[in-house]
Amino acid sequence: MTYLLNTWYFAAWARETTERPLMARTIVGEDLVIFRAADGAVSVLADVCPHRFAPLSAGVVANGVLTCGYHGLGFDGRGQCVANPHGPAPKAAQARAYPSVERHAAVWVWVGTPELADPSVIPDLGFIDAKPPEQRIEGLLHTKANYQLMVDNIMDLTHADYLHPDTLGGGVNTRAKMQVEKNGREVIIRWSADADTLPPAQNSLLPEPGHPADFRNEVYWREPGVMRQRVFFGPTGRLEDQGIDSWTMHTMTPETETTTHYFYCHTSDSLTADPTIAPVIEGFLHQAFAGEDAPMLEAQQRKLGDRDFWSMRPVLLNIDSGAVRSRRALDALIEKEREVVA
Amino acid sequence: MTYLLNTWYFAAWARETTERPLMARTIVGEDLVIFRAADGAVSVLADVCPHRFAPLSAGVVANGVLTCGYHGLGFDGRGQCVANPHGPAPKAAQARAYPSVERHAAVWVWVGTPELADPSVIPDLGFIDAKPPEQRIEGLLHTKANYQLMVDNIMDLTHADYLHPDTLGGGVNTRAKMQVEKNGREVIIRWSADADTLPPAQNSLLPEPGHPADFRNEVYWREPGVMRQRVFFGPTGRLEDQGIDSWTMHTMTPETETTTHYFYCHTSDSLTADPTIAPVIEGFLHQAFAGEDAPMLEAQQRKLGDRDFWSMRPVLLNIDSGAVRSRRALDALIEKEREVVA
Amino acid sequence: MTYLLNTWYFAAWARETTERPLMARTIVGEDLVIFRAADGAVSVLADVCPHRFAPLSAGVVANGVLTCGYHGLGFDGRGQCVANPHGPAPKAAQARAYPSVERHAAVWVWVGTPELADPSVIPDLGFIDAKPPEQRIEGLLHTKANYQLMVDNIMDLTHADYLHPDTLGGGVNTRAKMQVEKNGREVIIRWSADADTLPPAQNSLLPEPGHPADFRNEVYWREPGVMRQRVFFGPTGRLEDQGIDSWTMHTMTPETETTTHYFYCHTSDSLTADPTIAPVIEGFLHQAFAGEDAPMLEAQQRKLGDRDFWSMRPVLLNIDSGAVRSRRALDALIEKEREVVA
Repeated sequence: MTYLLNTWYFAAWARETTERPLMARTIVGEDLVIFRAADGAVSVLADVCPHRFAPLSAGVVANGVLTCGYHGLGFDGRGQCVANPHGPAPKAAQARAYPSVERHAAVWVWVGTPELADPSVIPDLGFIDAKPPEQRIEGLLHTKANYQLMVDNIMDLTHADYLHPDTLGGGVNTRAKMQVEKNGREVIIRWSADADTLPPAQNSLLPEPGHPADFRNEVYWREPGVMRQRVFFGPTGRLEDQGIDSWTMHTMTPETETTTHYFYCHTSDSLTADPTIAPVIEGFLHQAFAGEDAPMLEAQQRKLGDRDFWSMRPVLLNIDSGAVRSRRALDALIEKEREVVA
Repeated sequence: MTYLLNTWYFAAWARETTERPLMARTIVGEDLVIFRAADGAVSVLADVCPHRFAPLSAGVVANGVLTCGYHGLGFDGRGQCVANPHGPAPKAAQARAYPSVERHAAVWVWVGTPELADPSVIPDLGFIDAKPPEQRIEGLLHTKANYQLMVDNIMDLTHADYLHPDTLGGGVNTRAKMQVEKNGREVIIRWSADADTLPPAQNSLLPEPGHPADFRNEVYWREPGVMRQRVFFGPTGRLEDQGIDSWTMHTMTPETETTTHYFYCHTSDSLTADPTIAPVIEGFLHQAFAGEDAPMLEAQQRKLGDRDFWSMRPVLLNIDSGAVRSRRALDALIEKEREVVA
Repeated sequence: MTYLLNTWYFAAWARETTERPLMARTIVGEDLVIFRAADGAVSVLADVCPHRFAPLSAGVVANGVLTCGYHGLGFDGRGQCVANPHGPAPKAAQARAYPSVERHAAVWVWVGTPELADPSVIPDLGFIDAKPPEQRIEGLLHTKANYQLMVDNIMDLTHADYLHPDTLGGGVNTRAKMQVEKNGREVIIRWSADADTLPPAQNSLLPEPGHPADFRNEVYWREPGVMRQRVFFGPTGRLEDQGIDSWTMHTMTPETETTTHYFYCHTSDSLTADPTIAPVIEGFLHQAFAGEDAPMLEAQQRKLGDRDFWSMRPVLLNIDSGAVRSRRALDALIEKEREVVA
């Protein structure tokens, strides 16, 4: 396994970089320090001082200069040493700088060839910007599992029927008609059921809970692991005028081969209409993500160890179509990137 | 080092499999799930779903079918997928099944070639069946040491004089005459002392504690690491009419190369005669096993690291005869097994 | 990386070996047991019984004989087995003995070729002997960093200005004139500043805190990692008659490649004059060493991982002169030692 490098990784929520002057985060095995430079723009540097390898994240930021806490070298937002209390600032003292962009309430980082970093290919997560922060449920969950296992988990939501029976499951995902397609960079998987029983989380939001309902559940995957999920549901036959819409982002950013930063963001009509609903939905999501998904994914990872997923010869079922399509799309991109390098 | 594979391993106490619907256990490096199938018989499967490698032990058992907690595939006691809520049960979905037998209050598992699994070679531990559970002291102690070090510990009980001076030692094991013999598959070691001072644990059970006593201590080893110990003692010259008999099983089942499941079971005339004695004996055993043996064995293991025991060139003493004989018997069986394979 | 072997390592404070009958310590990757033999002299043996590899440090010492806690073999101060309760003491039962010397309140151990062990090359730490124990502040700090990183830390005390601003820093080390020289086995680094502001720790000891002062700070390095630091300061122009002198030993003994025993000892005129000052200085040192140095050094180590320091191509500044000179001196000795062996 290796990572796709010439791609944008969702590295942090933007608010994480305003809540504190600087922060350390590891993505795709690289230790990063994230701070705001003199112009207020987000800067991302390798989190290691080129002098004696102290972590720059143990330093301080003042006037947009990041000063190492060990011997006082100061670095600007491009990683250049601009201050040395012991003599002239040495040109060779240069911390690696990573292209970064602040968009959709997030910090995106490019770990590959800097010249190729094109912000226009950042996935469109406009649904996040469409809502004010207080109408979004967003978070970050660190999980000890490979990011691709975590993508698989979202690309096959039938698992909710078995792993999350009391919140997001119950059987409708299994009973629904499933359809997978590839559209440009996206792999899209759709589940559709009419006049069925909704999962407890959605059922509780119906005007008449317990009555038959129509259910649409769609996930749009983009490399390296950014997924937008739309759940659209309502009383049977009334989707058009009474349908309730929700969007959820699930983004899996590898920390290492076996650990992942899972960024999520949920918005919905219900949340917008009634702010008292947020804690209820947050409870559902927390039980499902932290209480049920994470233990299962971490157990899966322990079973895999450092073996390649395909080398284990998984038995493939029809429900794996979405996950397999997105794995293949990613593998093809990684393969192509390697060929260019070789 | 490697393990003997074509042999029965003591994998669990049978009551462990009735106290809960399913249980996970690793033996000789293999992750197993143990549950009771439709006919009530114990089943042992590899603890990994062939679909996406979730641990089957995170699932549920109903009507003897083990259902994976991730996507709902169901497996019978032979590991065959018999239920798939997403379509026909795929024939290829087969969890490895291990031959198993319930005998002597235990679950025995065969990790080698299934066709060779012959229940008639399970060691005879009839002394366990001869007593009702309430007249047995039995347990399981997980220890971070190689199982062979733990066999050595039982095959040289002179260690009790130094490591367990207040319970099972005191000097008599060192003073006793020692004799080792091999009888078929068994290596037998006997210590015998007349008119001596008993270890505190046995002395306290004498009609007149502190008076001279005769002492017989015998261990019968069988591959892969099952030992029966008989301690027989009484006032000097009165063994035949006043002797007190006890049997203890010490079984060392490798979990990994450096960790061991130590199963033990103690029965004795004293226990049968007076149930109030059980907590006293249990205290003696717990102090000796958990409080003194385990720390020493784990320290020994840390000193060995991943080096082979013989490569360390141990200085051999006469007291090592039993341990060395049982090590050689086991090594010969492992060697023979390898030749057959090669 | 490798260690210098034919050298004396500071292995323990002598009082550690009187406070308890025996102690285990690992230096340069070798597990040692330290105890006092029949003549009261310190003995250092490999901490592993040649019989079954139990740690000898789990045994007992009586009449200068160290008896293994597992099977009762007894060893004298030269590591020879002198007692075997199971038969004659086998000549082959010999625990490796390490040359050792008790000097300067410490136990020094030689891990290389025993014949080369010459006590006359133990570094002169007579300043320790010059003070009674109650006028010394001494200790041991275990740190998860390579010992050479910890030597670097002392050989460039400008770090105090950034890492210890409230105790040992403040800016004077950076402003001071620096000079490095090599004198025989020693690398000496000197900082000198006149009419400057002292670090808080020294400033508080001035007759008139806050007034301009003269400041001399010197470190004398000796292989493998023994440093004597002299700090000499006083009101400007009055060093000769009002100067306050202090000596501090910083000795970095490798435990493993990535962990270090940091032994330190501080004496000063102030301590001698006024015993109530000790807790104040102890507080300063503890904040600096344990609270600030250790976390930084351990973070540095994590960044290095198992890579060689030079392979990381550090940007060198003038402040690194002392550290680089001592690293080169040590590397040359290690290189020379290897050539002799090869």
